[in-house]
Amino acid sequence: MIDRYPVLDEVTRRPEALHTLDRSELDRLCAEIRAFLIEHIAKTGGHLASNLGIVEISVALALEFDPFSDRILYDVGHQCYVHKLLTGRREGFETLRTAGGMSGFPRPWESPADAFVAGHASGALSAAAGLARARTLGGKTHRVVAVVGDGALTGGMTMEALNDIGRGEEPVIVLLNDNAMAISQSVGGIADYLNRVRTRPSYYRFKTFVEKSVGKRFGGFLKRMKRRVKTLLLPQSFIEYLGFSYLGPVDGHDIGKLRDMISFAKLLNRPVVIHCLTVKGRGAEYAEQAPDRFHGAAAFDAFSGESLSRPSRSFSDVFGETVYALARENPAVCAITAAMTSGTGLTRFARDYPRRFFDVGIAEEHAVTMAAGLAKGGMTPVCAIYSTFLQRAYDQLLHDVCIDPVHVVFAVDRAGLVPGDGETHQGLFDVGFLGSAPGMTVYSPASLAELELVLRRAVCECTGPVAVRYPRGGEGACTFCDGEDLAVLPYEGKLPGTDAHPDATVVCYGILANEALAAAGTLAREGVRVRVVKLLRILPLPPLDAFADAPLVFAEEAAAAGSIGERALAYLAEKGLRVRARRLNTGARTLPCGDIPSLRRMCGLDERGIADAVRGLMEG
Amino acid sequence: MIDRYPVLDEVTRRPEALHTLDRSELDRLCAEIRAFLIEHIAKTGGHLASNLGIVEISVALALEFDPFSDRILYDVGHQCYVHKLLTGRREGFETLRTAGGMSGFPRPWESPADAFVAGHASGALSAAAGLARARTLGGKTHRVVAVVGDGALTGGMTMEALNDIGRGEEPVIVLLNDNAMAISQSVGGIADYLNRVRTRPSYYRFKTFVEKSVGKRFGGFLKRMKRRVKTLLLPQSFIEYLGFSYLGPVDGHDIGKLRDMISFAKLLNRPVVIHCLTVKGRGAEYAEQAPDRFHGAAAFDAFSGESLSRPSRSFSDVFGETVYALARENPAVCAITAAMTSGTGLTRFARDYPRRFFDVGIAEEHAVTMAAGLAKGGMTPVCAIYSTFLQRAYDQLLHDVCIDPVHVVFAVDRAGLVPGDGETHQGLFDVGFLGSAPGMTVYSPASLAELELVLRRAVCECTGPVAVRYPRGGEGACTFCDGEDLAVLPYEGKLPGTDAHPDATVVCYGILANEALAAAGTLAREGVRVRVVKLLRILPLPPLDAFADAPLVFAEEAAAAGSIGERALAYLAEKGLRVRARRLNTGARTLPCGDIPSLRRMCGLDERGIADAVRGLMEG
Repeated sequence: MIDRYPVLDEVTRRPEALHTLDRSELDRLCAEIRAFLIEHIAKTGGHLASNLGIVEISVALALEFDPFSDRILYDVGHQCYVHKLLTGRREGFETLRTAGGMSGFPRPWESPADAFVAGHASGALSAAAGLARARTLGGKTHRVVAVVGDGALTGGMTMEALNDIGRGEEPVIVLLNDNAMAISQSVGGIADYLNRVRTRPSYYRFKTFVEKSVGKRFGGFLKRMKRRVKTLLLPQSFIEYLGFSYLGPVDGHDIGKLRDMISFAKLLNRPVVIHCLTVKGRGAEYAEQAPDRFHGAAAFDAFSGESLSRPSRSFSDVFGETVYALARENPAVCAITAAMTSGTGLTRFARDYPRRFFDVGIAEEHAVTMAAGLAKGGMTPVCAIYSTFLQRAYDQLLHDVCIDPVHVVFAVDRAGLVPGDGETHQGLFDVGFLGSAPGMTVYSPASLAELELVLRRAVCECTGPVAVRYPRGGEGACTFCDGEDLAVLPYEGKLPGTDAHPDATVVCYGILANEALAAAGTLAREGVRVRVVKLLRILPLPPLDAFADAPLVFAEEAAAAGSIGERALAYLAEKGLRVRARRLNTGARTLPCGDIPSLRRMCGLDERGIADAVRGLMEG
Repeated sequence: MIDRYPVLDEVTRRPEALHTLDRSELDRLCAEIRAFLIEHIAKTGGHLASNLGIVEISVALALEFDPFSDRILYDVGHQCYVHKLLTGRREGFETLRTAGGMSGFPRPWESPADAFVAGHASGALSAAAGLARARTLGGKTHRVVAVVGDGALTGGMTMEALNDIGRGEEPVIVLLNDNAMAISQSVGGIADYLNRVRTRPSYYRFKTFVEKSVGKRFGGFLKRMKRRVKTLLLPQSFIEYLGFSYLGPVDGHDIGKLRDMISFAKLLNRPVVIHCLTVKGRGAEYAEQAPDRFHGAAAFDAFSGESLSRPSRSFSDVFGETVYALARENPAVCAITAAMTSGTGLTRFARDYPRRFFDVGIAEEHAVTMAAGLAKGGMTPVCAIYSTFLQRAYDQLLHDVCIDPVHVVFAVDRAGLVPGDGETHQGLFDVGFLGSAPGMTVYSPASLAELELVLRRAVCECTGPVAVRYPRGGEGACTFCDGEDLAVLPYEGKLPGTDAHPDATVVCYGILANEALAAAGTLAREGVRVRVVKLLRILPLPPLDAFADAPLVFAEEAAAAGSIGERALAYLAEKGLRVRARRLNTGARTLPCGDIPSLRRMCGLDERGIADAVRGLMEG
């Protein structure tokens, strides 16, 4: 190992050594970092392509700033691996994205070098604005830097922040890491604009200022750049209209040029955007060719890039197939995604029904209201957004979809516990916030077959706002296909519905039904008869009165607030029914990265936790 | 009456007459509309200044489009009065913003001329994108027009929509009503940019194309314009970078020029922005001078603009005074608003502490994350946003404030029932969504004194995320100042806490405590002893176990989902306590415009409704 990464080893041992490296050693360091990332991410899985693309930027930032006193923010957070590697967390790559291990996103509690929590796109500039203003108000002088992907520019929040920062002189350095790709191909006018800039050599508006007032240090740099200057006049650049100084575009894989540019930005000491051009997946041919596949990759062969596991058929796959079939049958069906074409399973839909497919960029708010407009105009939009990202469109859901109710179908992917990504990506709030939207129907299929079934129902039979929420990954051991809004499940081959006096009832929905059934099986062997009530339609609240005669356990991969258990117990209490009940859910906390079994265990949502809850109730 | 509005009368009687009016008659019509608006809004209150500013635009739109088959969207919706007047709703101005009366915002169920529900800013372009795409996919050819204020450009959603629409050729006409003012003075780089454009004559990029291919009809128009053309090259405009054709700026009070411009935009048949310059409050000197005051005005004298009522001291006033005092005492206290400086009571703060005051534009998402950044940087930000608008920042609340918990104080104004504005402005969801945020503390003061008290507590004593929610307007009859997180209130001079066996308990918070006390008084006269439990800190959930011995009524100006009653009943049920309980809240519905007493009555939240609920429980 030591032989393979000599420069990285040295920098790991003595971080200050970084500043003594000459240019060729820095290039060597970058090559070693790439090899290190490929070696480790091949084993653990993780965000490969984006981190291969940002190696030189992160090294340049580590050289030009002190990550422990200056504040460096990464947006979207998944491009923080090199930053973590250079700030004392090399060991962490052994446990990346595992339970108890290192997060793949900036986490301030993990290291003081992580300036702000990150995970959702487009927020870093807003946080940077706050940190920079606090810095100045507090009389301090450290730097605040936000590293922003081009995809994040399609998010409205970034524009709000640019607009706010651009009006003043508060120093903030924005490093635009433009790999022309975001997660899917980035889309829209802003991407087109960047593309036009990208294809032309640059012109430095401040060159005269710099030549006159800064002199020698930048003289050579400017001479080098001038050779490439042709015609583009940047005073009219989009960024400058907003009040920023614009520097670039610069080759984001050239540490020397990056450092020159950053030094210049520091000197300007005002809002500056440095526009860096990078190649996503840089240094691994397979990742450069298919950055989408290596965006968030599972374990793979480090040499060929071949995946080591053959992933089973996922809920996202079935969603994609079903909505494709529905679009073939019905010309009103449209699909909408917010920069997650592949992740949500819509690649084939996009290819074959391009007129009815809308990738709006990382812009969930717009996606939802646009969907409402499509519905109001007579189409049947299916809006596929991950649970955690749909939080962004809570207001649009209430205001544009539910007040004047329209038939928008929400495909809420990655609902419930999400492995690997941690606190910022858990899908734990959608049951609560969807449930607060007047007139919203919510389905939670427990199997691939049920997803297909309820998606058809949502598209073809529902008339108002409807959501279908389903988890990341594939189904569990049981391949339910009853399709009942409320089903009483047989256990151990015996139908407990026919059992007039069960000892307890477990109410559950989604793939957690597998754990509930397993718990019922265990308990049956102990002589405890448990009825498992599996909800397919979780909202409007199902009638559970008939099940209140025995102890009730609610098991949900959802936050306590707004959970079905909370709503059902309040309903039963108001009816005057005395119940013995226990709510199992993820509580009022945030949940770190980890695999699903360990996350479930942590929340008492595994077979054992459910069985224990039943036992506890029966004893109590 | 008939003598005063001859042209308007004719157009009201025969809408088609509009198209036969000559130029001087149209000018006359506009003058009459202004007089009509002033006369009526003086009586009913309402959004005066913005509607006075948009008269010619709305008339031009009515001439160039068919409001019943074309789709015209108003963003922000409050500038829709003239549109309503010209689409068969003149009678409605007698009942504007009253219970059962005409809404001051576009409401599709009120008229087919209202294309989409509106109330929150920055959504119209997204809805228009959806309507336009549905139109084209459906093989129809009607026009889709979005009328957008300059303030809405500071909202990220508008940028997301511009970005998405700009990439294609889907015809959408955006009419930018630029009064340089939004609600407060609009802020940021975009406003600066518009200001620069505004001060220069225009250049029409498409003039050659038009002269050659369109010929005569536009010849005269172009000649007229050319006289004003000087140097501005618009290919580099911000709007054009995004893919739109840009037309303007044009005088938004010149119907002839507006019509020319709109005809031209129709001809282009692609995404077009028409940039109109208008004067907010046009035609009423007092409104032109103080458009902020006449943004959403109460009844006033139509001649002088003097307010007819002397408003009592409001919660917003007390918030403003208290946060001002806190800022004086503590240099870390900052205030943030999203274009609501005056509405939230921060005018004096903005004047005297400009460095610590941040108006970020209509950009709630950015506001909240920026606040989190300030807090992370050591400041104590107080983020003042109306309840309904804070829905926009739900994700930022969860992701940026609560995952890595920071001490941001949310001042949630207009919480609970909101009179006048209707469905889009009710503050009914904040209890639920604030309650879902891990670690959030929520206070709900019942009086001005309590607001001051808990705001101090939130700023000086709390350490994590904390929200103080308070209603629009002033306090009720009781000027509570106990400051207890949970207080048992005396009724009829007798302290029911000393009464070991009350007949029932009413749990309430905020100014609704007045209704609860009134109900308790009424019931006392009937011999029913009611204990009123007034919560000041509503979350974390207070311990209510001790009150479960008697029938429990929860009275809340909040949606059922996520209400305190729901959470408390679930908690009590899980504890195994059998309760007799009734939840009074606003349910799972949307609520129209109306005064507070009628809205409360509608939800059973008035004195009578609460008393009836107690009686019902005691009988049941």
